[in-house]
Amino acid sequence: MTRTRVHNFAISLDGFGAGEGQTLDSPFGHAGGRLMEWFFDTPTFRQMQGAEGGSNGVDAAFAANWGAGVGAEIMGRNKFGPQRGPWSDDEWKGWWGDDPVFHTPVFVLTHHPRPTLEMEGGTTFHFIDATPAEALALAQEAAGGLDVRIGGGVETVRQFLAADLVDTMHLVQVPIVLGRGERLWDGLEGLEQRFDIEAVSSPSGVTHLTFDRRA
Amino acid sequence: MTRTRVHNFAISLDGFGAGEGQTLDSPFGHAGGRLMEWFFDTPTFRQMQGAEGGSNGVDAAFAANWGAGVGAEIMGRNKFGPQRGPWSDDEWKGWWGDDPVFHTPVFVLTHHPRPTLEMEGGTTFHFIDATPAEALALAQEAAGGLDVRIGGGVETVRQFLAADLVDTMHLVQVPIVLGRGERLWDGLEGLEQRFDIEAVSSPSGVTHLTFDRRA
Repeated sequence: MTRTRVHNFAISLDGFGAGEGQTLDSPFGHAGGRLMEWFFDTPTFRQMQGAEGGSNGVDAAFAANWGAGVGAEIMGRNKFGPQRGPWSDDEWKGWWGDDPVFHTPVFVLTHHPRPTLEMEGGTTFHFIDATPAEALALAQEAAGGLDVRIGGGVETVRQFLAADLVDTMHLVQVPIVLGRGERLWDGLEGLEQRFDIEAVSSPSGVTHLTFDRRA
Repeated sequence: MTRTRVHNFAISLDGFGAGEGQTLDSPFGHAGGRLMEWFFDTPTFRQMQGAEGGSNGVDAAFAANWGAGVGAEIMGRNKFGPQRGPWSDDEWKGWWGDDPVFHTPVFVLTHHPRPTLEMEGGTTFHFIDATPAEALALAQEAAGGLDVRIGGGVETVRQFLAADLVDTMHLVQVPIVLGRGERLWDGLEGLEQRFDIEAVSSPSGVTHLTFDRRA
């Protein structure tokens, strides 16, 4: 059985996974980089930047789990880029550079499909207008027997949770109060009944929350 | 300098400190006892029930801090009882029994003042229509040089945080998603800038969050 997984998904104390006002320069809106500071010194992030070294604690351990055994990702359009509505600029190929970090097929959920983008390093962006279940079926087929990662953003993770399609989830709760933005928990009353949940606090100040679907 | 303190205040993952539908039998509404399960086996709670023994871990350690050095409490009317509007039943003297656990003056915030209730064991309920700052001044005077505890509920803690009157706060985040009720964080964007915050996860599954006002 392959699994559908969420990793390294950061939220504020008040449950926002992104702030207000997402733009080209501010993928997290007014949250800025604060939701991901715990991540920046991990070897996982440094390798994404072409650097070496990094931390060796609990943050690093959790961060490293995101890639192993994953054969495809599903992301919302807002994780690809800040554009809304019909695509006005096909030349711009997302926030992830010429050689995106994914190295697998990536299914971008959008009501405005566009041609597939083949990037360097094995990442292929497919743009699909699909329900969570339809997208997951496509991604599972593309993953070739490996797991599927739900990459975010907030709305995408919430939709997959609401549809009960998530098997494991790793959240990182950051001790800030954002006050506004996109809230993960809305509409998920009773979610804990479907998962075994653990919490592990880190010396960095964040708390790692893991959810494992109950058998 | 005396301090204004919050202790043992539990919230769900989605930040609700109480559920919907508070009644005489359900002080936490549809949350039931779930927000306080971490507390039930602590010596602090057991002593409140006239029992002995209890757990000896991190939950017990945090729970025990609530009373030492406290000379008065301020609580919202909803922590005294579920009645709303003008008092219709002066005979009922709150959820706390004949010998309430507080053993100090307690100031109950209400728009409907009523005569002071002297209970057994040193608890006196004063019913006052006051701003947070006014209530704190009264409580500090009554506390005789000791600290003042802000006892809840949600609206009361939020108002004191918004007015920047809280010096230390201990929250207990419980891994449940309540979905509805009274949310602690609303209107508190940027709260982290005023506090040093620590998180400590417990084997029981909850995470203790402590806030200390920055100098």
